[in-house]
Amino acid sequence: MAGPVSAPADAERAALSAQELAEGYRLACQTYARGDCKLRVLPESLTALQRAQVEGLAPMVPTEPLVSTYQVTLAPPSIADPRSDDLRLQEALRLQHGVESHGIDIEVLRRLSPQLRTPDWQKQASVRAGEVIAVSPWRGRSLGLAVDLGTTKIAGYLVDLQSGQTLAARGIMNPQIAYGEDVVSRIALALKGIAEAARLRELAAGALNQLADELCAEVDRGPETIFETVVVGNTAMHHLLLGLPVAQLAFAPYVPVVRQALDIKARDIGLRIAPGAYVHLLPNIAGFVGADHVAMLLATGVAQAADVTLALDIGTNTEICLIQSGKMTSVSCASGPAFEGAHIRHGMRAASGAIERLQLDGDRVTYQTIGGRPPAGLCGSGILDAIAQLYLAGVLDRRGTLREHPRTRGHGARREFVLVDEAEGDGRPAIAITQHDVREIQLAKAAIRTGVDLLLARYGLAATAIEQVIIAGAFGTYLDVSSAVAIGMLPQLPRERFRQVGNAAGAGARLALVSQSQRAEARLIGERVNYLELAADPQFSSTFTQATWLG
Amino acid sequence: MAGPVSAPADAERAALSAQELAEGYRLACQTYARGDCKLRVLPESLTALQRAQVEGLAPMVPTEPLVSTYQVTLAPPSIADPRSDDLRLQEALRLQHGVESHGIDIEVLRRLSPQLRTPDWQKQASVRAGEVIAVSPWRGRSLGLAVDLGTTKIAGYLVDLQSGQTLAARGIMNPQIAYGEDVVSRIALALKGIAEAARLRELAAGALNQLADELCAEVDRGPETIFETVVVGNTAMHHLLLGLPVAQLAFAPYVPVVRQALDIKARDIGLRIAPGAYVHLLPNIAGFVGADHVAMLLATGVAQAADVTLALDIGTNTEICLIQSGKMTSVSCASGPAFEGAHIRHGMRAASGAIERLQLDGDRVTYQTIGGRPPAGLCGSGILDAIAQLYLAGVLDRRGTLREHPRTRGHGARREFVLVDEAEGDGRPAIAITQHDVREIQLAKAAIRTGVDLLLARYGLAATAIEQVIIAGAFGTYLDVSSAVAIGMLPQLPRERFRQVGNAAGAGARLALVSQSQRAEARLIGERVNYLELAADPQFSSTFTQATWLG
Repeated sequence: MAGPVSAPADAERAALSAQELAEGYRLACQTYARGDCKLRVLPESLTALQRAQVEGLAPMVPTEPLVSTYQVTLAPPSIADPRSDDLRLQEALRLQHGVESHGIDIEVLRRLSPQLRTPDWQKQASVRAGEVIAVSPWRGRSLGLAVDLGTTKIAGYLVDLQSGQTLAARGIMNPQIAYGEDVVSRIALALKGIAEAARLRELAAGALNQLADELCAEVDRGPETIFETVVVGNTAMHHLLLGLPVAQLAFAPYVPVVRQALDIKARDIGLRIAPGAYVHLLPNIAGFVGADHVAMLLATGVAQAADVTLALDIGTNTEICLIQSGKMTSVSCASGPAFEGAHIRHGMRAASGAIERLQLDGDRVTYQTIGGRPPAGLCGSGILDAIAQLYLAGVLDRRGTLREHPRTRGHGARREFVLVDEAEGDGRPAIAITQHDVREIQLAKAAIRTGVDLLLARYGLAATAIEQVIIAGAFGTYLDVSSAVAIGMLPQLPRERFRQVGNAAGAGARLALVSQSQRAEARLIGERVNYLELAADPQFSSTFTQATWLG
Repeated sequence: MAGPVSAPADAERAALSAQELAEGYRLACQTYARGDCKLRVLPESLTALQRAQVEGLAPMVPTEPLVSTYQVTLAPPSIADPRSDDLRLQEALRLQHGVESHGIDIEVLRRLSPQLRTPDWQKQASVRAGEVIAVSPWRGRSLGLAVDLGTTKIAGYLVDLQSGQTLAARGIMNPQIAYGEDVVSRIALALKGIAEAARLRELAAGALNQLADELCAEVDRGPETIFETVVVGNTAMHHLLLGLPVAQLAFAPYVPVVRQALDIKARDIGLRIAPGAYVHLLPNIAGFVGADHVAMLLATGVAQAADVTLALDIGTNTEICLIQSGKMTSVSCASGPAFEGAHIRHGMRAASGAIERLQLDGDRVTYQTIGGRPPAGLCGSGILDAIAQLYLAGVLDRRGTLREHPRTRGHGARREFVLVDEAEGDGRPAIAITQHDVREIQLAKAAIRTGVDLLLARYGLAATAIEQVIIAGAFGTYLDVSSAVAIGMLPQLPRERFRQVGNAAGAGARLALVSQSQRAEARLIGERVNYLELAADPQFSSTFTQATWLG
């Protein structure tokens, strides 16, 4: 920051050190320009489009989509054959394809007569469970959209419903993030009033429309060629998208309005795809264990696991399921946004320039950044590595206190460990891990480990009984398992028992999109999974306190 | 008209006689006020609320409504029982009533959580074909709405779905009438553009909402307590209400978009009743034989008739069905609005003061008016009586020419027969039948008779083979059958073969509302009825020409 600006406000003096203020660091929300200024936004503060979290499992199943599309050739009406347009179409489906349809969606009917007559009577009709949901010119390919609606990111997949092939994939930021980075702040906003809830709903629907438009543009189509959509997301995102009440999600016992799977007309949630198309939402499990968790369990196939299996989807909220002999129990842990780089001094999202791997050899720090760019900050996996390396090197003790080291500076709560100093970073500011950062990570990892331990206790199992650990989610894809084990976030188990599967929720959404059996399986998972409320467990606080210790 | 106004325009000189102009008659659409004026609107020009056409058949059937309502008592959620609201409700339905529901409408879900919690957990749930379409405080009675959506009038019936009892009935004018009195002018308007079609659709939906509000107010309810609606109407009214395209209705071969019965969410047509409620529309037969005709056939039970039966619903458009041994064929006749008093010099709707019965004894005319009020004009049945009496008295010859008579005045095409002279009418103007009026009635009755005769010809039957004639509709309720037979509108048959059944379409809508079997029967009727296109019959014009003759 250079140029005439307002004097530092109290909030800035509290948030920033004297040195930072001296170096020109200011809070954008507190500073007024008094003339022409020059300011520099730190890379870690930019909401740059981060690494798209669209990769992951791509398990193939035989396709059996709910929507099938048939080419029909109709005879034009005449005085001798004045059949109505609806019966003319349905009779053609019956005679030309043996397909019985019991009805035609009203929005399809509203377009039917001009559609049939322009330019000729050769059309395709898309039928879903006996209902005609679209009539269109012959295009040859039926498209479906699978969406993983995350609190931070939204991943969309455009899928060929016949082949099951993913034609295009894209990740965008959830625009609701402007109103709070976690589900609790979004719920709090929705509770302020009808307009606020409607705003969040519109933002979610708008983002889905944007994804549909962009993905279709990649294959030279319009979004009206999407005949079915499957959406998964955590329970809050699910409810906010559908316009469901969230007050009861905010307070114990955190009850969702909807647990079961839903089929809703896309128009009823403001999604502009084929006129009569549906959105299918996989079932939720509980207020903080949503359809994305069910999708993850579906995609990883753990419901059928013969081995004792632990499946985690790590995020701002981490859902964990323990499976033993068909018994499935899930918990939700408030792990917070630290692993997404938030509330960490030099934390940033997993965008270009983020340190994603880090090693400490004596006094020397080596690291790897996303895109090989100069280091701008630390993303989740980099932070995890840093804590693990500091702990293994003895710079951090089990309580998480930073000891004296040639790379530390400051004292007590102000102490920090410099990972990249000013000289290394092309004149950029230093990148450090602060004592406060360590505390944030301790809380985050303790939340996860508490969930694991209480699940094991409920089953009467020791950690060593776990034969398979499946780690899903954006952060889970890139984290170094050894680091996670080193700090005690995950139990000490042989490395080969761990499997990192990427965006399994998105994969589950795609499976449910192309396969009716997979959709039925997801319903079954939704019914079978038991939910364990951690906060109600009498061992919760003692387990959590112990889990904050490193190692 | 008194006071300074513009000079008579050409249009007025063409439409009004010199005498009428001298008496101060003017056309409101052509005259400008030049200062303070006093004007008198003739009673026959007022669109006064006419006799409500809500009476008619009220056949009782065992009720078996599609929507059933169940009282449930739910346990409030707790940490020990954090079931979602949807499953909590559905499990209560299962355990307390043995009712399996497969889903809950999205609009019900959007209100569910506050609804369940306010003020307590005692609610009623309305279930339709396994779908929960409403959750509300316990009210004890389930309401349904049956609507006969006519071109001119809309009749609404609020029905108790359990008892089948009609709790309130009401008739209102179709507000679309401001845009044209017949279906052709409405279709022409809808074809002008999207805004015009939307306007007609909004007017129809608005009228239905008004009816729902007013009927519910009569029983101290709100319209959200209506759990199902059945609408019948002619094909054009049906299409305009649903927002379906009508271009193909306007030109041969006059193809409807929809022939089959429809179940549409009420919200998808802008009807504000229970949040998840449906509107059911009975099937149409053809472009000019609509769901109201099917409803009439349902209510009169003629589909099962053992006798050769002719069933007519007389209106601006007259639909006629001939039934023999289960074979049903229907035609549509453009009978025009003459029997509704339009295009008749002193014609008026069947409102207070309209002459509805009339007899001629030599020079003496006796008559009966609606409500016993001083005569203001002639409604349909009065006009029919007048023509029949003039024909029987020999004042009209078979060609329809008015002969000289002490009560005639004027010559040639300007000749008129004075029914009520100025002296009789409390100083009101005379009421007469003009030569032009006779021509209008000849065309109207010829249209109907042509339909009857061509149907008979198609079946190879003589008119005398008809064992039963059922006359439905507003005009059909009040017409004097002898008059209709006298002028040759209906075949010469013994009086006891005729049955006047009132608003049978409204009765059919009520049957389909309260009984699933009746609804299924209506579907069957819709599929069984053959349509005969009169205009395509080679005998049409010769038959029509002959049918214009009186007697």
